[in-house]
Parts: sequence; structure tokens; C-alpha cells
Amino acid sequence: MAEIDDFMAFGRDVLAVAGRIAAARFRTSLAVEDKSAEGGFDPVTVADRLVETAIRERIEARFPDHGIGGEEYGVAHGSSAWRWIVDPIDGTRAFMIGLPVWGCLLGLLRDDEPVLGFMHQPILGETFSGDGTKAWVEGAGVRREIRANRAATLPSAVLCATHPDMFGAAVQPRFDRLAGSVRMTRYGGDCYNYCLLAHGLVDLVVEDALKPYDILPLVPIVRGAGAYVTDLAGNTPEGGLVIAAANTALHRAALHMMGG
Amino acid sequence: MAEIDDFMAFGRDVLAVAGRIAAARFRTSLAVEDKSAEGGFDPVTVADRLVETAIRERIEARFPDHGIGGEEYGVAHGSSAWRWIVDPIDGTRAFMIGLPVWGCLLGLLRDDEPVLGFMHQPILGETFSGDGTKAWVEGAGVRREIRANRAATLPSAVLCATHPDMFGAAVQPRFDRLAGSVRMTRYGGDCYNYCLLAHGLVDLVVEDALKPYDILPLVPIVRGAGAYVTDLAGNTPEGGLVIAAANTALHRAALHMMGG
Repeated sequence: MAEIDDFMAFGRDVLAVAGRIAAARFRTSLAVEDKSAEGGFDPVTVADRLVETAIRERIEARFPDHGIGGEEYGVAHGSSAWRWIVDPIDGTRAFMIGLPVWGCLLGLLRDDEPVLGFMHQPILGETFSGDGTKAWVEGAGVRREIRANRAATLPSAVLCATHPDMFGAAVQPRFDRLAGSVRMTRYGGDCYNYCLLAHGLVDLVVEDALKPYDILPLVPIVRGAGAYVTDLAGNTPEGGLVIAAANTALHRAALHMMGG
Repeated sequence: MAEIDDFMAFGRDVLAVAGRIAAARFRTSLAVEDKSAEGGFDPVTVADRLVETAIRERIEARFPDHGIGGEEYGVAHGSSAWRWIVDPIDGTRAFMIGLPVWGCLLGLLRDDEPVLGFMHQPILGETFSGDGTKAWVEGAGVRREIRANRAATLPSAVLCATHPDMFGAAVQPRFDRLAGSVRMTRYGGDCYNYCLLAHGLVDLVVEDALKPYDILPLVPIVRGAGAYVTDLAGNTPEGGLVIAAANTALHRAALHMMGG
């Protein structure tokens, strides 16, 4: 228990440092390069690499037996059951165009199962965190517990996804049908969508083609708020298609509509 | 000139008040009603009405001969050439789900032509303003001039729109072709898209079905930053289909692709 508390404090501290590095480069000229092999547009900013390096250095110094997996620099294996997952700037496109809906993500896995998660947005000065049983939002010196919307139903639901074209051809018609069944669909948002689901303001997040570092740090926040997040088979998501819902009935309905 | 400076100072002050009213209700439980007659979902929050009332009261007290047009309470005619346009919370859906990409909009028209514009985001503590020849962003006590991206081309452009389904059936294929011709398309953003275009971070904003109060307050900001914003006929937009571009060549290319 004391060990987990230590990890929780470390995660929040290291993201505060990471956030300052990212914020200093927000809405400034950035060297943007395209790292996508297939000709798609996958922007990598200098800030991305600086942030991941800063986080990795601090993990290696403090917990040398922990593993680390990150977006920019791959996996470093550890000798213990613990592994940190880093997405230095989730929502790089939002970052590039000056919209503050990106976040620095950090997750902690034990034997590959996500147990702690953090999302920090330095421009807004807020941090979402979760341990799988509780979730919090912290800002302006105040930390308070958040809960997902237990009352949400499919017809009343607010559905979010980062982009309408993120779905594979087989999945697109299913997503479109889901979008047609809810009260309102909103695109954009990136990691914020999952945090706002934990906050009780968004009811459904359905996305595709995610990487492990996009979603694993958010799982303990979503679950900590009493919500559900799985892949199409109902397991802990490790990327690809992800379905997050504010309550179990809504999750079941969305999973069914998406073909699960 | 002194008169315009007075209006500029008034606009910034009144939006600071408006922003505090809106911010106090952000991410809280709000009474949401549906004011759309056709069964679509058009959320009106209590905050919307409180903000517009506060702005109107201040305009009426300070400039009793000015007209006022607002989203919630219609048009009050004035006896002078001046008319204020209010969108108390542009991006009500973003506001509802807790994303800080909404803004309080205020514009000033002289003989129906937009001459001053303001967008204030109280959670981020920033205000964009413009007078048609210059544009500024102000935050944390610092005000600095902003310019649109003169170097943007169609293949390099970042295109933004609030929602992929905001276009009429005749316009949709044209927008899709435009989206397929640029480097990156991003949905969401509301009034921020136009301000980030003025900031040089977004290159194109193309939207449909706008109301006058959605766009008129933003025109002097976009034009003040050296960018272009028109309707399909090339005139000052009064709603409907709006095309904003960072430079004249990009504007001409987008206008042509959209059928103008």
C-alpha cells in the first residue's frame, strides 16, 4: 500500500515537470516531422521527445528495476513486475494547432495490468488520476473525487471520438449507427474524452486504431470513476478498438452495436 | 478614433465580467433544455442566458443609442449606426461536456459592417480581439499582436470545422474533397478555430449553417490578422457557409473548391 502511494505521488510529480516542458513549447514554432511509414500524417514535435526523455530519466533514476514503454523511444525492460507507460503528448495534432485538449499521459502496470493512471494538462493546470477504484481531478490546489454518470442511457448519451475517420472500413458503419443512436456526438478531445467520461460529463468514448500508450494510462482513471473500458472482446484494451462507457448497461449496448 | 478605443476597452471589460459568470457554471450541473423546433439537439444552458443578460445590461447602460443582437434574446434596435452582436457561449456543446474550447463572443458593427470583435475564454484566461487591421491575443497580463500564416498552401494546410456533419447535402462532397486536399483536418474547436487561424496555427476554417452571431464577432479578428473570411459569394459572411483562410491564394483555392 505504501508502495502504491509512493508511485502515485511520483507520477503526479513527474507529470508536473513534464507539463512545464510541454507548456513552454505550446503555440510556438516547432520542428514538426512525419514519422509515419505509410505516408499518413503523424506529427512528432520536439516537445514530444523532450517530454518523454524527461519522464524516462526520472523513472530510471528512481525505480531502476521498473520497465518503461513510451511512444517515442520504445520499451526498456525491467527486472520487476512494474512497468510505466508514457505518452508524452497525447493529442499531438491539438497541441500543434494550439488547442489545449492534449495531455501528458503516464500509466503504471503490474504484470501487464494497468493499476495507476495520470493525465496532466499544464495549460489548464489540471491533473486527472485514478487507481482503478477511485479517480480524481486536481487543479488550483484542490483535489476532488470524480464519478462517471451512472444514469446515462443510449438515447441520452454524449458520445465522443477524436476523429470521424479513425475507424476501419468494417467498423465505420457500426460506429455511424452508434452515433445515430445517441443524443449527441462530438469529435476532437483526445485523452480529454476519457477524463471527461470519468468526470461524468461524457457518457461514451469509442475510438479505433489506438496504440497501447494512448489508452493504458487512462484505464485506471476510467475504472476508478466507476466506468467501463474494454476492447471488443471485453478485455482490458491494449490499443486498437476501444469502448469506454459510463455504466455497465451503456457499455453492453455500445459493445453490442460495435460487434462485440 | 477615441470613440473606437472606448468601444475596444468596453468590449474587453464586459467580456471579463461575462467570462466570470460562464466559468462559475463550467463543469457543474446545468439545466439543459432543447430549443430546436425541428427536433435537432440545440442545448441552451442557464449560463448562456445569464451571460447574454449581463452583457446586454451593460451595453444598454453605457451606450443606450446602440443596437444589440444576441443568440438568446433577439434584436434590440438602436438609433445610431452602431450595433453589438452577442454570442454568450459559442460552443455550447463543448461547454456542456467540459472542454474549454468555447468562448464568449462580442462584435461591434457600424452600418452592418463588423469593425471590432472579441473572443474571451475564461478558463484559459485569454482574449482574442481585432479591429480589422490588427489582431491580438491577451493572457496572463500580456497582450501581443498575432498574424495569420502567410506561407500556408493547400497541400500544407491545417483545415478545421466544428463537426463533419454540419454541411448541407450539396456542400458535403465539396467539403470532403477539400478535406482530402489538405495536410490535416481536425473537428471540434468552435470559435477557437477562427482565433487559431488568426494566431497562425490553423490555415483554413470552413463551416456551414452558422448564425450571424457565430461569425460576425470573429470577422475583425480574422481580418485584423491579415487573413480572409467570406461567404460563398466573397462577401462579409452573415452566417450560413463560411470560408476563412490564412492568405488570399488559399482563400481563392478553398472558395473555388467549395463552389464559389
